[in-house]
Amino acid sequence: MIVAFGEALLRLCPPGHQRVEQATTFEIEIGGAELNTAVGLVRLGREVSWVSRVPDSPLGQMVRQRVRSLGVDDSHIINGSGRQGLYYLEQGAAPRASSIIYDRADSAMARLKSTELDWPKIIPPHGWLHVTGITAAICPDSVRAAIAAAKAADARISFDLNYRSKLWSVEEAGRVLGEMIPFCDLLFASENDAKLLFGIQGSLSEIAERFQVKSIATMRRESQSLWRDRIHATGWHDGKTIQTEPIEVEVVDRIGTGDAFAAGVIHGAIDDEFERSLQTGTAMAALAHTIPGDLLLVTKDEVDAVMKGAGLRIRR
Amino acid sequence: MIVAFGEALLRLCPPGHQRVEQATTFEIEIGGAELNTAVGLVRLGREVSWVSRVPDSPLGQMVRQRVRSLGVDDSHIINGSGRQGLYYLEQGAAPRASSIIYDRADSAMARLKSTELDWPKIIPPHGWLHVTGITAAICPDSVRAAIAAAKAADARISFDLNYRSKLWSVEEAGRVLGEMIPFCDLLFASENDAKLLFGIQGSLSEIAERFQVKSIATMRRESQSLWRDRIHATGWHDGKTIQTEPIEVEVVDRIGTGDAFAAGVIHGAIDDEFERSLQTGTAMAALAHTIPGDLLLVTKDEVDAVMKGAGLRIRR
Amino acid sequence: MIVAFGEALLRLCPPGHQRVEQATTFEIEIGGAELNTAVGLVRLGREVSWVSRVPDSPLGQMVRQRVRSLGVDDSHIINGSGRQGLYYLEQGAAPRASSIIYDRADSAMARLKSTELDWPKIIPPHGWLHVTGITAAICPDSVRAAIAAAKAADARISFDLNYRSKLWSVEEAGRVLGEMIPFCDLLFASENDAKLLFGIQGSLSEIAERFQVKSIATMRRESQSLWRDRIHATGWHDGKTIQTEPIEVEVVDRIGTGDAFAAGVIHGAIDDEFERSLQTGTAMAALAHTIPGDLLLVTKDEVDAVMKGAGLRIRR
Amino acid sequence: MIVAFGEALLRLCPPGHQRVEQATTFEIEIGGAELNTAVGLVRLGREVSWVSRVPDSPLGQMVRQRVRSLGVDDSHIINGSGRQGLYYLEQGAAPRASSIIYDRADSAMARLKSTELDWPKIIPPHGWLHVTGITAAICPDSVRAAIAAAKAADARISFDLNYRSKLWSVEEAGRVLGEMIPFCDLLFASENDAKLLFGIQGSLSEIAERFQVKSIATMRRESQSLWRDRIHATGWHDGKTIQTEPIEVEVVDRIGTGDAFAAGVIHGAIDDEFERSLQTGTAMAALAHTIPGDLLLVTKDEVDAVMKGAGLRIRR
Amino acid sequence: MIVAFGEALLRLCPPGHQRVEQATTFEIEIGGAELNTAVGLVRLGREVSWVSRVPDSPLGQMVRQRVRSLGVDDSHIINGSGRQGLYYLEQGAAPRASSIIYDRADSAMARLKSTELDWPKIIPPHGWLHVTGITAAICPDSVRAAIAAAKAADARISFDLNYRSKLWSVEEAGRVLGEMIPFCDLLFASENDAKLLFGIQGSLSEIAERFQVKSIATMRRESQSLWRDRIHATGWHDGKTIQTEPIEVEVVDRIGTGDAFAAGVIHGAIDDEFERSLQTGTAMAALAHTIPGDLLLVTKDEVDAVMKGAGLRIRR
Amino acid sequence: MIVAFGEALLRLCPPGHQRVEQATTFEIEIGGAELNTAVGLVRLGREVSWVSRVPDSPLGQMVRQRVRSLGVDDSHIINGSGRQGLYYLEQGAAPRASSIIYDRADSAMARLKSTELDWPKIIPPHGWLHVTGITAAICPDSVRAAIAAAKAADARISFDLNYRSKLWSVEEAGRVLGEMIPFCDLLFASENDAKLLFGIQGSLSEIAERFQVKSIATMRRESQSLWRDRIHATGWHDGKTIQTEPIEVEVVDRIGTGDAFAAGVIHGAIDDEFERSLQTGTAMAALAHTIPGDLLLVTKDEVDAVMKGAGLRIRR
Repeated sequence: MIVAFGEALLRLCPPGHQRVEQATTFEIEIGGAELNTAVGLVRLGREVSWVSRVPDSPLGQMVRQRVRSLGVDDSHIINGSGRQGLYYLEQGAAPRASSIIYDRADSAMARLKSTELDWPKIIPPHGWLHVTGITAAICPDSVRAAIAAAKAADARISFDLNYRSKLWSVEEAGRVLGEMIPFCDLLFASENDAKLLFGIQGSLSEIAERFQVKSIATMRRESQSLWRDRIHATGWHDGKTIQTEPIEVEVVDRIGTGDAFAAGVIHGAIDDEFERSLQTGTAMAALAHTIPGDLLLVTKDEVDAVMKGAGLRIRR
Repeated sequence: MIVAFGEALLRLCPPGHQRVEQATTFEIEIGGAELNTAVGLVRLGREVSWVSRVPDSPLGQMVRQRVRSLGVDDSHIINGSGRQGLYYLEQGAAPRASSIIYDRADSAMARLKSTELDWPKIIPPHGWLHVTGITAAICPDSVRAAIAAAKAADARISFDLNYRSKLWSVEEAGRVLGEMIPFCDLLFASENDAKLLFGIQGSLSEIAERFQVKSIATMRRESQSLWRDRIHATGWHDGKTIQTEPIEVEVVDRIGTGDAFAAGVIHGAIDDEFERSLQTGTAMAALAHTIPGDLLLVTKDEVDAVMKGAGLRIRR
Repeated sequence: MIVAFGEALLRLCPPGHQRVEQATTFEIEIGGAELNTAVGLVRLGREVSWVSRVPDSPLGQMVRQRVRSLGVDDSHIINGSGRQGLYYLEQGAAPRASSIIYDRADSAMARLKSTELDWPKIIPPHGWLHVTGITAAICPDSVRAAIAAAKAADARISFDLNYRSKLWSVEEAGRVLGEMIPFCDLLFASENDAKLLFGIQGSLSEIAERFQVKSIATMRRESQSLWRDRIHATGWHDGKTIQTEPIEVEVVDRIGTGDAFAAGVIHGAIDDEFERSLQTGTAMAALAHTIPGDLLLVTKDEVDAVMKGAGLRIRR
Repeated sequence: MIVAFGEALLRLCPPGHQRVEQATTFEIEIGGAELNTAVGLVRLGREVSWVSRVPDSPLGQMVRQRVRSLGVDDSHIINGSGRQGLYYLEQGAAPRASSIIYDRADSAMARLKSTELDWPKIIPPHGWLHVTGITAAICPDSVRAAIAAAKAADARISFDLNYRSKLWSVEEAGRVLGEMIPFCDLLFASENDAKLLFGIQGSLSEIAERFQVKSIATMRRESQSLWRDRIHATGWHDGKTIQTEPIEVEVVDRIGTGDAFAAGVIHGAIDDEFERSLQTGTAMAALAHTIPGDLLLVTKDEVDAVMKGAGLRIRR
Repeated sequence: MIVAFGEALLRLCPPGHQRVEQATTFEIEIGGAELNTAVGLVRLGREVSWVSRVPDSPLGQMVRQRVRSLGVDDSHIINGSGRQGLYYLEQGAAPRASSIIYDRADSAMARLKSTELDWPKIIPPHGWLHVTGITAAICPDSVRAAIAAAKAADARISFDLNYRSKLWSVEEAGRVLGEMIPFCDLLFASENDAKLLFGIQGSLSEIAERFQVKSIATMRRESQSLWRDRIHATGWHDGKTIQTEPIEVEVVDRIGTGDAFAAGVIHGAIDDEFERSLQTGTAMAALAHTIPGDLLLVTKDEVDAVMKGAGLRIRR
Repeated sequence: MIVAFGEALLRLCPPGHQRVEQATTFEIEIGGAELNTAVGLVRLGREVSWVSRVPDSPLGQMVRQRVRSLGVDDSHIINGSGRQGLYYLEQGAAPRASSIIYDRADSAMARLKSTELDWPKIIPPHGWLHVTGITAAICPDSVRAAIAAAKAADARISFDLNYRSKLWSVEEAGRVLGEMIPFCDLLFASENDAKLLFGIQGSLSEIAERFQVKSIATMRRESQSLWRDRIHATGWHDGKTIQTEPIEVEVVDRIGTGDAFAAGVIHGAIDDEFERSLQTGTAMAALAHTIPGDLLLVTKDEVDAVMKGAGLRIRR
């Protein structure tokens, strides 16, 4: 059983490439970094429990239903006061970048007290805990408690830096995350975040050494445009740097693709197949670009097909 | 020039009679008690300035654009920090009542400081100030400042009780509103609010006497259902109680109908035609039931037609 | 073979009960008085040719496709210069009447020259010609030529007054229609039009006598509201006045219901069953109220079911 | 734990009151008699497992996700060959009845073999089994096996006749259902079905006597129209006939209202409160009329509010 | 007169790039290999009759209306029992291929008996018959009867292999099609199908020799992606291989593009202009990529413009 | 204060890449060459008044609301008789060009009399007048009056040739525009128009010399496709030719991009920074490609970001 701990936001997006100011309808999606990864792992056949706190309202109900529908265990989601966090998304087109307006302050999750969740009961022995810097920003004490419980249960820990400047300062994030990373078995770190938070410019090995992390993975994109991309993965494991073949993608929805990558890598890492885990992650991320919404609605067969380079003929 | 002071919320509503939990899109409207009244007054030919504080974001921009498009003066809207308040609306059907989930805490308007607006400059001599209990709950000091400035400018004041239990307690509201009402020239008070806030059960005259208000108006509905209604107005003025003929309505959208009533009554009250003002208010409220969204998109001709009982044949 | 002669307009309607000024999309329908009747007759099993002139553009193409799809013969539709006439429709709700903004000047049909159509070839011997006052306003000479050809072919003629004040004055309409009606075998005349055009206030017999018309039919509604109605028919034939039982209707779309009535009556009149023709007309009109758009998409079975009072249980 | 056994169909419905022949989009819902009841029971706080067979395809996946999202246990749903059954729905308006076109032959459920489900393991001791005549028509042997297992487990059984003429003849249905009913503890039987299948015209007591059923419940409607209705329940229990107060409803969606009624009655019957069970059933059915789709998305609070006659004011 | 014989399916497609499992609406199109070709030929100015069997239901009515609206003759479409075949389409994006789920078993067409159609009356002397391997799989005897009648009427025959693995095995298809092809004047064969069915790997000439076919045409694509493509045609005629210039396409909808190619080639082949026929076919296929739905809604002018390389400036 | 003088059309566009003939809805936008430029200038911080004549109808109201909402001054828009001009837009995909069907004859603007507008009052001293060849075609006398008033007020004048063949002949346009251009300070001229109207093939300097214009600007595109483009600007000023760096664009909506270019160039020209004005114009045009509708809904920050080459990372 994998435990993913984080918040789900309601995503409100004007149709097509409309701007928020001209919108008369919003399309609704549910997403959240750890939840996206949880869904991806379920699609790969894993059992995952998503731990969160949602408001006691139809919006919290909406989140819980979506989680349950996708086969993610909801038994450790707690209901409580506070609002449903949300974000507004404008889909861009070159040279106009996509943009996100967050409205997540004082959410049910932000009000989570570190005593509300009984971590030793939540994390099973020899399980896996996945968490990101977003949750660390919102509920640092709960993340510390979760990490401690994971260590006590001999569970492995994966951590995605995911620095969000709206949530905390670089200094604060660097300090808090710097304390958490040494407990990780698998770290997801973009070059940007590594540089911003820790001043690390160079190779992944530098991060590995600094924080004594066994495995590091990062997804890279060569954005020629917003509608097409080419992605590949770089990883560091057991002292070696590994690269995957790039995959060409046509972009339907960019949100959540890093989380899909994490799902693929964790899936492989559980079985201690690191090289294959990077390939799975790249394929997962590639597919995530082709699906509307944050959540990765693919089948294992489709992931395998991408990994084999199965081509683009209509499947009948 | 009429000055209306209040907040606009973003209204998110699932299409048709869908529940929020099953929605995949939200229809977007903009509304707010005083803004709704402002728009109604512009439709009747008045000049109105709507005073508010909106977030410095595409959402605040959306609000401002809507206000401007409808011919309401926006020169006293200020931009600032804080979020865009919003509410989720579920349209009901008998026996399921419609329901609203507010998400308005910590909005740009809620962060308004009483020193941010220069009321003596905003309210013109012999003008008119309109405000409701909602704004009084959110920014009581600013409302007090506005009332003081109105009095100083020899402007008349209309006030709509509009008690919202999510914003404040009955006790708090009764105390604050009880201090403000005596300054009003025209009070809008539902029976429910009068009873709840001031323990006044009986006729409007009792309120008038207690608070020394010259004119009181209230809209009443005989809700047999959510899709049809029959509305009429009762008013108290110069010691007399006045009733209007009821109007049958087919209900497209119930939100903002009380504010439309207020617009009609204020319009008449400005010209000191109280009986006609109630009739105009009833016609405005009736038409407001037939238009999607909070805002009253009617023409003066249509209001006149309803007041004359012009019938339902297609206008070609 | 029945020949219906008239114009089709593009109908642009904001969704739901939106006003045109707030619309961001229009729903598209095709309609026209004689075309609506033609479609109704095809549904009852008759062969009908609709004669018209449409613009040489994708919009004219759209009209022709719709006509063809519904099994109406299009072999006498001619293409030509001029624009596609259109109208904007706002669906009302009590007490706000529905309203229509016409934009039909200088249409392809309005440019029809009376020599463009070879009426003796179009109207078959012993056939039936149907036309309305709308076409008489737009192309009076062509209507005269059609009537002459019908008479020469021993075809019967039905005429629906359908006075439209935007197209011509009462005086002009009264004069032109007054000359045409005596050639009719079956006249559709609302009380309103009879009074307006000919000053006839009383019973249908007065019209019959004045213009020497054999049969007259009129649909009446007891509009308590825009969403519910009760309709019945009154007819005059062979010196007798006939009434049908009223039918309760829930109103989805009111446009074209009079044309559906005409279809039902003509259908019966062809077989010289006048009383039944009124019943069929009432049933057709009732069903037309329940279908979005101008065109009557029903089956003969459904018409029979309404005439038998078959009830409202779900048909599975 | 309640066990509901049946099939879910995909429902394809043109928007608004469009006819299928004019549709360019279909709105998608999932529904099925026993599933609808299962969802209603979950909403009332019961644990329910829905037993079915769904196709091994994205459509079967869609069904399973919907079931899971609503908190219904899916652990006894099996995947298999065969198609996803579906039906097309046209929403009517008086005098045009709504109509359904079924397309369910050779579905995954229709291919269920009676040996595929291990009923003794599915039905817990002292549990409850709910099934309808629809499932009895499609998989009679499996229904017999389920009933036998329920009896063996000392579970109670509820059965809804739900005769569907497209699935089997009156004779066949009468014979098969006649054998099953005597095992029921609670029977749902419309007057229509009782008469059609068993020639029973009179009171519920006659059915009770004939089949030795302890409790019978039926929902009755006084359909004045398709958009408004008044419903109440009649029950027979312990030799007494019981009636509930009628509830006025505004109809958003009629499909699944009988199944919602069954949920309410079963909920009460489990606690042996028969009179209250009828009231709960009526309230559930009333609410089901107000919600788009087959499935009953209400809260327990809303059911209580209807039972108390809480009124139609907006809930804020 | 060209006779096209085949089935039309209802196509249900989630909007945008949604997956079926997440869809809440389906967009509806009508399509079928031979029907698509028929529509393309009508657009090029040919008279075409489409022969098929459709269900006696609103769905069959929908198909017939669509056929008629596009100017295809429907006088040989027969109504009958059986369901409306359908397919679900998921539009992909690289690296996720588009996918189709067929649901066409036991359709009205599949129930066609070879005696139901009077082929000698359907196929006019010196006419043209077009059919594909799909129809050969569903109604082999009827195809044989049609071919025989065509031969007897001295009509030419075109055949598109169109192998569908869900309909029959490679062996069965190879055997049946192998007997039919020798009667063809014009064969459409993809490299894939040629290899799969007949083990022919090489050039088109090998097929021509094996089956004694005069003309063979095939469309080729260089799929770099799902949203852009470059297509050209290769043909074999009179012992010569011919190639067309490639055309760059932006892909709106890929379905039916091969059928559009066939329409263009048949159009030229009727006039015995084989080289031009390939160019027309390529232009038709290119345009078909740009139009939503299976059916080719273009004008002759647009086809000519593409053949002349007219450029991409807005046509005003 | 900048004064822009022109007409706004209603744009009716089928969703996605649908053809008009298959549409069942139209998406509504408002646009017009000078209005588009006016909106762009407001976005850059300028004060702009748009001068026009709109119909006295909900459609004219819709135009006025849109203008007002975007912060453009509407105090010189007059209401009057005549229809609302409109155009139908089909969005193409290579090799199918986009196409526009105009329906603008006899619009309210076309009925503008040159005496209706008091130009000396409209154009402020030392202001700026912007007008295009479209307005010159529709209301030549009013354009002459506006130019005269501008000259008298010492205002600068910008003119965009914008030749539309549907409005007037090349000869007529060449003659009328040839007389107007010499009064311009800044001319926008595409190579195509320059050649067509004045037979000028070569460089911009030739136009400058012929008409004694100080500054000329033109936007150029290297259309490889309809969905991607690369644009840059060429200008001629003070005897020098200037080029901007090309910008890669992903095309959401091409309409109004030339007008956005004009806005950027005028913005710079007002401050006498010609080189920068071309860069601003190119950035504005690039952004205009990414926004649905004719109107340029961007922020000054976004324009600056494009000019700095800020990249495509999501802005959070």
